[in-house]
Amino acid sequence: MRMYDIIEKKRDNRELSKAEIDYFISEYSKDNIPDYQASALLMAIYFNGLTESELLNFTFAMRDSSKKIDLSSLKIPGKYIVDKHSTGGVGDKVTLIVLPIVAALGVGVCKMSGKGLGFTGGTADKLESIEGYRIDIPIKDALKQVQDIGICLMSQSDEIAIADKKLYALRDTTATVECMDLIASSIMSKKLASGADKILLDVTVGSGAFMKDLDSARALAQSMIKIGKVAGVETKVVITSMSEPLGRNVGNALEMKEVISFLLADEETIMSDEFRDLREVVLEIAAQMISMSGICTDMEQNKKDIIRVIISGEAYIKFIELIKAQGGKTEKVYLDWLEKDLDLPVTKDKVTFLKEIHAQSSGYIVSIDSKSIGEALVCLGGGRKKKGDPIDYAVGFEFNKKVGDKVEEGDVILTVLYNDKQNFEEAFEYIENAIYIDNIEDKLGNALRLKPHVLDILGADE
Amino acid sequence: MRMYDIIEKKRDNRELSKAEIDYFISEYSKDNIPDYQASALLMAIYFNGLTESELLNFTFAMRDSSKKIDLSSLKIPGKYIVDKHSTGGVGDKVTLIVLPIVAALGVGVCKMSGKGLGFTGGTADKLESIEGYRIDIPIKDALKQVQDIGICLMSQSDEIAIADKKLYALRDTTATVECMDLIASSIMSKKLASGADKILLDVTVGSGAFMKDLDSARALAQSMIKIGKVAGVETKVVITSMSEPLGRNVGNALEMKEVISFLLADEETIMSDEFRDLREVVLEIAAQMISMSGICTDMEQNKKDIIRVIISGEAYIKFIELIKAQGGKTEKVYLDWLEKDLDLPVTKDKVTFLKEIHAQSSGYIVSIDSKSIGEALVCLGGGRKKKGDPIDYAVGFEFNKKVGDKVEEGDVILTVLYNDKQNFEEAFEYIENAIYIDNIEDKLGNALRLKPHVLDILGADE
Repeated sequence: MRMYDIIEKKRDNRELSKAEIDYFISEYSKDNIPDYQASALLMAIYFNGLTESELLNFTFAMRDSSKKIDLSSLKIPGKYIVDKHSTGGVGDKVTLIVLPIVAALGVGVCKMSGKGLGFTGGTADKLESIEGYRIDIPIKDALKQVQDIGICLMSQSDEIAIADKKLYALRDTTATVECMDLIASSIMSKKLASGADKILLDVTVGSGAFMKDLDSARALAQSMIKIGKVAGVETKVVITSMSEPLGRNVGNALEMKEVISFLLADEETIMSDEFRDLREVVLEIAAQMISMSGICTDMEQNKKDIIRVIISGEAYIKFIELIKAQGGKTEKVYLDWLEKDLDLPVTKDKVTFLKEIHAQSSGYIVSIDSKSIGEALVCLGGGRKKKGDPIDYAVGFEFNKKVGDKVEEGDVILTVLYNDKQNFEEAFEYIENAIYIDNIEDKLGNALRLKPHVLDILGADE
Repeated sequence: MRMYDIIEKKRDNRELSKAEIDYFISEYSKDNIPDYQASALLMAIYFNGLTESELLNFTFAMRDSSKKIDLSSLKIPGKYIVDKHSTGGVGDKVTLIVLPIVAALGVGVCKMSGKGLGFTGGTADKLESIEGYRIDIPIKDALKQVQDIGICLMSQSDEIAIADKKLYALRDTTATVECMDLIASSIMSKKLASGADKILLDVTVGSGAFMKDLDSARALAQSMIKIGKVAGVETKVVITSMSEPLGRNVGNALEMKEVISFLLADEETIMSDEFRDLREVVLEIAAQMISMSGICTDMEQNKKDIIRVIISGEAYIKFIELIKAQGGKTEKVYLDWLEKDLDLPVTKDKVTFLKEIHAQSSGYIVSIDSKSIGEALVCLGGGRKKKGDPIDYAVGFEFNKKVGDKVEEGDVILTVLYNDKQNFEEAFEYIENAIYIDNIEDKLGNALRLKPHVLDILGADE
């Protein structure tokens, strides 16, 4: 078998056999195929796509390119181990909130998360904004931790789906990331190798996500559900909006603070307008995970339970257990509104400058382009231009206003936190172009504010 | 400027600027851009093509990626220096015949030729089938040789169009060779850097050529003519057929022997059926070169002069001068049919086995697939599977019959010369499938025999 013939075949849009795909994945993993041949194949796949059978073979070959994680030690009779994955976005801190919640409700979670690249943030970086948090821990320690406290949040293991890891790094430098079939196979190969019984996927859609429109998001969802079905791992997809950044904070330490506020909120706060989009997404995803785990399939009951463990502080306690278990530094702080001392994570949040961005006119905020905000964060140093770049965890944006909010000229829309004036200048161009205010009717403005953020839910047909 | 953005832009079918193309070619030549990014860009170009302006910028950037050859020392007032290039094929020994002929008629030639790869042979390999022939000579020695004897046939210099050399090697392993725009820019960058005043291109068409049909060949021709025009170098294209192998011999030493027979032929032989296709192509290309050189623009007169210098032996003497000047070994041999002693090149022609291939049925030879014959030669060891492979110069095929010839069942169609029985078995499969005999009417058979091999002639409109 020759790699040249495989490239040529895909280039000419002829279907690759299982043997050819296995050969490519296995030899590439062993460094027997040079990157320049792999990148030519990836670009040919970008243009011609993968057939259903190629997609399955590609995914399973990557899943099997190294060992699978064995989660059997965590298995409880009658319950399922559910993994969760988001296709990522700007301000997406859902994992950090959902996992402590479901762990507090008895769903054991052992999740791997990646670092951010380009305009999308990574859960791993947000965790590392806490002093001392160890994201790289061996799998056996992770399993032990889940047995002890029911939760672990670690970095993507180098040991699983190594073919995907190698190919992703290559795609990332050759403009072949944004290819639906390659995205589907990359995600599913990692998730299938992670050993869970079921998978819940959050497929984001909008400018700040890989999928730019609902149709593409649905197609990606169906593709991953199909892969899961053939692999015998039930897969469900929640499609969520990423047209504006999720929540009110963008930036690593800032998002961590928003996570803490959310988990510390009282009943009034949690149901307030402050958390409207974040709450909607968190409730749906957490409730789905509880349902899939077999604990309780009544979604309304699950949502009530979620609110309950937030208000009671159980979810926050689970969160602090997680942080402490993985070496994160915390300090006792007296919180006025709770009238008590609490462990709070110590975050890397030192910033030199604050700058308020004001509305240039009166009206409704019609859009806040999440991709531009993500790019602006990269300009500030809060994201990576290329792999391995250091990150300034403290910088970012706090939004006072969101899409559908009414503003008067001069109102503060957001505050920029930064450490370098030149970086701010670069970021400002993105911010300026990201926000669009229009003098629309109140009825339309309200409709914008109430637009759902959970756009669709798809699952395998039984 | 980032290579990633350049790949993404081309992938999305947006036009690359001159600055972007210059950046790519220049940085890639200096090894500052990795092969895996270059191959991704090449595959994107394969799918999206180049716009006219990209094609010109790409070609000129490659031309200027290293020094141009200065042919001014060869310049004669009122005459033009004409370079010749063929897109290659199976049995294509036209350069080896045409150059001594036009040199004998006063057209100075300093030509670079490449080695063969895959199913197409290379003029450089055919020359190296002569004992001692030095193909790699420094440019200054080549220029001196042209001043002394009017002819030099050397290998492609490493010093010119180095970007093309590097990119071609990459395309060759990533299935991005067969792309019209990349072929056009590769050929023209080398030819423009070679310093001639005018360029004559032989664009071959058929299964044994890059261009599979006449429309593609014409499009490639127009594209190269356009590049030449913008570069201020008049470019003319002769489109020739490569559906069956050209001439009666395929294989390095065998083709060299056919060249010698052609140049030694008397009037009757040269006009005989033996040379019908080869003669037609040689006459057209040689006459065009003489015309473009400014010596004589009367094509009919040129063709008469060509026949004359063959019959008189002047072309053969020029050929032997060339061989000797570049170290090729010759020996005096008494030739019966000329009734005299002659210098004959000593070729590497030792074969162990001969096998005649017989017609399986009676009728007319309707087709001899040149690609299959080229592949069969590679099987015998007479061509390279990959760059750097050694070559068995002696092996190959001698055709007794060609397309349009009438055969009886059992007639010898060709003889296979080989040195390894296993290689023969592999080659035999290709040969078997290459030849198609059908019991068609005499009128149709004759029409096939008389089908022209020069299919079109295109030049820059003045």
